[in-house]
Amino acid sequence: MMTRLYFDRDSKRGISGTYNWLVDEVKELGDALNATNKEELEEEFADVIAWLASLANVTGVDLEAAAIAKYNHKCPKCGRSPCKCSL
Amino acid sequence: MMTRLYFDRDSKRGISGTYNWLVDEVKELGDALNATNKEELEEEFADVIAWLASLANVTGVDLEAAAIAKYNHKCPKCGRSPCKCSL
Repeated sequence: MMTRLYFDRDSKRGISGTYNWLVDEVKELGDALNATNKEELEEEFADVIAWLASLANVTGVDLEAAAIAKYNHKCPKCGRSPCKCSL
Repeated sequence: MMTRLYFDRDSKRGISGTYNWLVDEVKELGDALNATNKEELEEEFADVIAWLASLANVTGVDLEAAAIAKYNHKCPKCGRSPCKCSL
């Protein structure tokens, strides 16, 4: 969906510009963690995952496949589910 | 899946600690954008979405529902698909 909606704009903006937007959205999410408005918090989560998907698209990475490859129903560090690593 | 794997650890670490981890992973993703190793880049994307999911879990946000609520097959700003906003 993000490819269809935004790939043209994302590819024109490029990798660095898209990464910088992602960083800004992560900061906004951090600010929203202290907000009392749940809807605002949900919107900031939506923005971060959207910009992460945009960045994956412009770098040619399949975000879902990458996530499943590393976190495939077990912790990649300890190999357990649930994870038993120390905090 | 992230709830099953990590919710116990994530909830013990708390919202601020989990957010700080997310920020660190976003920095590592930024470094990996300059790497030539595609597999390393994919792993960093996996880590960012994993920590974003962890943060969503400890704040009680459904990440997928939040994303779909805002980006529901059209740009939330211009209402078009593909997006026609200016860059």
